[in-house]
Amino acid sequence: GICYVGSETLWLWQRTFTSFVVLFLQMGWGDLGVFGEPSKETPNLDQMAAEGMLFLDFYTANPLCSPSRAALLTGRLPVRNGFYTTNAHARNAYTPQDIVGGIQDSELLLPELLKKAGYINKIVGKWHLGHRPQFHPLKHGFDEWFGSPNCHFGPYDNRELPNIPVYRDWEMIGRYYEDFKIDLKTGEANLTQLYLQEALDFISKQQASQQPFFLYWAIDATHAPVYASKQFLGTSQRGLYGDAVREIDDSIGKILRHLQQLGISENTFVFFTSDNGAALISAPKQGGSNGPFLCGKQTTFEGGMREPAIAWWPGHIPAGEVSHQLGNVMDLFTTSLSLAGLQPPSDRQIDGIDLLPVMLQGKLIDRPIFYYRGNEMMAVRVGLYKAHYWTWSNSWEEYGKGTDFCPGQSVSGVTTHTQEEHTYLPLLFHLGRDPGEKFPLSFASEEYQSTMERITGIVQQHKDTLMPGEPQLNVCDKAIMNWSPPGCEKLGKCLKAPESDPQKCSWPH
Amino acid sequence: GICYVGSETLWLWQRTFTSFVVLFLQMGWGDLGVFGEPSKETPNLDQMAAEGMLFLDFYTANPLCSPSRAALLTGRLPVRNGFYTTNAHARNAYTPQDIVGGIQDSELLLPELLKKAGYINKIVGKWHLGHRPQFHPLKHGFDEWFGSPNCHFGPYDNRELPNIPVYRDWEMIGRYYEDFKIDLKTGEANLTQLYLQEALDFISKQQASQQPFFLYWAIDATHAPVYASKQFLGTSQRGLYGDAVREIDDSIGKILRHLQQLGISENTFVFFTSDNGAALISAPKQGGSNGPFLCGKQTTFEGGMREPAIAWWPGHIPAGEVSHQLGNVMDLFTTSLSLAGLQPPSDRQIDGIDLLPVMLQGKLIDRPIFYYRGNEMMAVRVGLYKAHYWTWSNSWEEYGKGTDFCPGQSVSGVTTHTQEEHTYLPLLFHLGRDPGEKFPLSFASEEYQSTMERITGIVQQHKDTLMPGEPQLNVCDKAIMNWSPPGCEKLGKCLKAPESDPQKCSWPH
Repeated sequence: GICYVGSETLWLWQRTFTSFVVLFLQMGWGDLGVFGEPSKETPNLDQMAAEGMLFLDFYTANPLCSPSRAALLTGRLPVRNGFYTTNAHARNAYTPQDIVGGIQDSELLLPELLKKAGYINKIVGKWHLGHRPQFHPLKHGFDEWFGSPNCHFGPYDNRELPNIPVYRDWEMIGRYYEDFKIDLKTGEANLTQLYLQEALDFISKQQASQQPFFLYWAIDATHAPVYASKQFLGTSQRGLYGDAVREIDDSIGKILRHLQQLGISENTFVFFTSDNGAALISAPKQGGSNGPFLCGKQTTFEGGMREPAIAWWPGHIPAGEVSHQLGNVMDLFTTSLSLAGLQPPSDRQIDGIDLLPVMLQGKLIDRPIFYYRGNEMMAVRVGLYKAHYWTWSNSWEEYGKGTDFCPGQSVSGVTTHTQEEHTYLPLLFHLGRDPGEKFPLSFASEEYQSTMERITGIVQQHKDTLMPGEPQLNVCDKAIMNWSPPGCEKLGKCLKAPESDPQKCSWPH
Repeated sequence: GICYVGSETLWLWQRTFTSFVVLFLQMGWGDLGVFGEPSKETPNLDQMAAEGMLFLDFYTANPLCSPSRAALLTGRLPVRNGFYTTNAHARNAYTPQDIVGGIQDSELLLPELLKKAGYINKIVGKWHLGHRPQFHPLKHGFDEWFGSPNCHFGPYDNRELPNIPVYRDWEMIGRYYEDFKIDLKTGEANLTQLYLQEALDFISKQQASQQPFFLYWAIDATHAPVYASKQFLGTSQRGLYGDAVREIDDSIGKILRHLQQLGISENTFVFFTSDNGAALISAPKQGGSNGPFLCGKQTTFEGGMREPAIAWWPGHIPAGEVSHQLGNVMDLFTTSLSLAGLQPPSDRQIDGIDLLPVMLQGKLIDRPIFYYRGNEMMAVRVGLYKAHYWTWSNSWEEYGKGTDFCPGQSVSGVTTHTQEEHTYLPLLFHLGRDPGEKFPLSFASEEYQSTMERITGIVQQHKDTLMPGEPQLNVCDKAIMNWSPPGCEKLGKCLKAPESDPQKCSWPH
C-alpha cells in the first residue's frame, strides 16, 4: 500500500485520479539516446528521462514477449502464472496462433483489480496472452481493445495459416496485410499512427469524464517485420529499425504532451519499458541494440533481459533522477495497485514490488532478479553480482542454420551452444565492473566465495517456496488458429478451420 | 580562419581572450553516462554535454597514445608528423623511454603558433612526444609543464630501467613510485588531485593577468596502472577504473566551475576527448568501456578510435546540442588557431579542419576519417560507411599469450589474428545500422558497389597526395632512457646509463 504518504494524501490521490499509462514495446536498452545509441535519435524519450526517473537496472521477466506480458499484468513470474512450457528443458515459449493455452481465469490481472477501484482500462496493440475466446482481454479486465492477439507476422494464405486479426473491443475489424497493410518490401505501415490516435482519443475521453484510467500501450513496430509510417521512412541514420524507433519516440512525445495539454500530467503515472532485449537475430536492418550488454532476445544474458525504463510523473517523481534500484516489469503491477490504493492479492505469490518508495523517496530496496528460460532458473542477480546456474544461447543445430542470438559476441564457456549446467559452481559476474558478462570471477577468489554464499541462500529460498503454475504453452493445434474470430461473419472473413490435431508445441530455443 | 564571423567579431574575441582548455584523457566512448555507461557515474561530464555540444562521431588519429597526442598538437596524421614506425607493417608504436625519436623541430605545434598570438601555454600530465632534451615541451611552445614524459609504468629498479621522472617546467622534481607514489595494490595515488590543482592555479593566474591561455590537461589516471585518490577509492560501482573515472569527472566539474566563478567561461573554449579507445586488454578492473563498438585500443575498429567528445563554450556553443559531424582530434589544432585568429601553416598538409562552423552554426562538413595503424591505412569512414582495407586485431602468437584486444567479441573475417588485406574488395559496414561492425555489406549489393565507387576516389586521392614523414619510432636505445633528466643533480637522482646500443624497436601489435 502507500500508507507511508498518509491516508489524507491517499484520498487526495484517489480524488485527483492517478491514472496509468504503461508504454510496453520491444526496444533494446541501447536503442535510446540516453542509453548511448550512437545516432541519438530519441529526443522525446531522452526528454522523458530528463523530466522523470531513469532506471538503469530494470529487467523484464523473460527474454521473450508473451511471458513478459503475462508477468507485467499478473505481477508474477511466468513459471507461476503458467506462461512457460515443460515440453523440453529451459525453452522459451510464447503464443503463436496455434497455441491452445492462454491466461487462466484464476490469474488476477492488473486491469481486473483496477476495475474494482473504478478505473477504465484499455489495451492498444499486441495482447499476446492467448487468442481463444476465454483469453480475450475484455474477459480479463480490459474495457477496450484496439490491436491484435498475436504478432503481425505474415502475409499468410488463409488456407494453411490465417492472417492475424485486428480487434476493436470484442470483435475483429480486419486482418493484417488484408485490411491493415504492411509493405514488407518498403517497411511501410501506418499502424503506429493508428495506435497513437487510439491512445490520444482514449486519454481525451477519460479526461473529459474525469475518469481514472489505465492505458496499456503495447505496440509492435520494432518487432520484425519492422514497419514505419511513410513520413518516417528513410529518416533515420539507422535504417528501417531506426525509422520505427523514431516514429515510436515521436508518438510517445505526443502522448506526454497530450497529457500536459489536458492538464492531467500530474495525475498520470507513465512508465516506459520493453518486453525483451533487442532481437539481434533481426539485426542490423530489423533489430535494435542492447548497448554494452551480452547477446539479445531469447537469452538470459543481460542483452536479453535488461530493459530501458523511464518513470514519468511530473510534480511527484523528481526530474532528472537516476535509480540503481533493481526493477522488474512485474513491479508495475504492484506499484500501480499501490497508487490506486489497492493491496496486491494475498492468496498467491506476487513477484513485483512497490516502487513508489524508490521513485518518490529515492529509496533502494534489496531484492533479487531471477532470469528464467521456460521452466529453468538460468541466473540470478543479487546486488551487482549475477550468477549463472545454466548457460545457453541456442543449439548447435539452430546455430548451424544461421540463428545467432549473440552476433559478433562469443564468451568462452558462457555463450554456449549446449545447455551447460553450473548449479554446483555457478559462473559469477560483477555487472558493475563487467556489464557485458565477459570476465567470470575466479572460483578460487574470496570475492566469489563470499558472494556465492549470500546468493546460494537467496536461490535456495526461492526454489523451496516456488509453486510452478500449470504450463499453458505445451500444446498447439492448427484447428484453434484465428480462422473465425468473433465478428468475422459481418466482415465475410471467416475461414475454414482444419480438423483438431493437438500436438506438443515445438520450442527450439 | 574565422572570416565568416566578420573581422569586428574577430577583434572582439581577441580582446576578450578566447582561451583554450583541452582535456585529453584515456577514456572509452562508453565510459560516460551520457554515452550509456550502465552505472552513469559521470555527472559533471554529462552536465558539460548538456551545456555544450556532444559529438557522436568523433575520432582520434590513432588507436594508441603517442601518435594521437602528436596528431592533436600538429593537426597532422601520425604518418605525416613522423609518429609511426616502418619496422614492420601496420604496427602501433609509441614512445617508451628507450625511444630515440620524438617530435621534430620541423613540426609546428599548436602552442608554438598560439605563442605568436600572445598565448601562455601549459601542459599538465603526460607529454609523450619524446623525452630527450630536444623534444622537451618547453622547446615546442609550452611555457609551463607539470607532468611526465612517459606513462606511469613501474616501479622499476633504476638499474635495468629508471623510474619515470615528473617534471616541473624544465627540470624533473622527482620520480613516480619514489616521490610520486602509486600504490599498485590499492590503486591509491593523489596525482589527479595534483594535476587538478595545477590546472586551477594556472587558470587563476592567467585570469588575474588577463592573459589568453592554452591549457592542455593530459592526465592519465585511467591508463593502467589505474589509480585514484583516497577519497575516491571504492566509491564506484565499476571498481578501481570507475573510481578513477569519478575522480576525473569530479575534477572536470571543478575546472568548469572555476572558469565560471572567475567569470571567464564565455571566453574559454573547453574541449574534452580521448587519445584512444578504452584498453579492453586491461578490463574489467583496469579498463573501460567502448559501449556498443567493436574491440578497443590498439585496433582500428570503432572501439579503438571512436572517442567521447564534448565542446563547451557557454554563450557561444548552444547548450544541449548534438552533432553528427565527423570530427578528429586534429581538428582541435585548426579550430584553436581559427579561434585565435590565426591561419594554419600553409607549407604542409594539415589534416584537421576548423569545427567552428559546426559548433557555432550547426553546419556539417563532408570529410573522410582515416584509420591508420603505423604505416598502413587500415580503414576509411565516409559518411555513415566505413571500409576496411586491412583487418587485424593482433597476432595469433600474442593472442595465444592472452593478449586480447576484443574480449568477448569475435566477428568472423573481421577481428582477424592474421593481417588480412582487403584492398581490392574492402569490407564495408554501415555504421548507422551497424555501429558494432558486425554485419559486412554483401559485395554483390548495389549499396556496396555505389558506396565503394565514392570511397575509392577519396582513398585514391589521399594516397596519391600523401607524403609520409620520417618515421620517428623505429629506433630504441636503453642508453637514452630517463637516467639523468635535467635537474637530477639537485635531487641526487641521476642514474648511470648503460652503453649506447641502438636497436630496432619491437612493436608486436
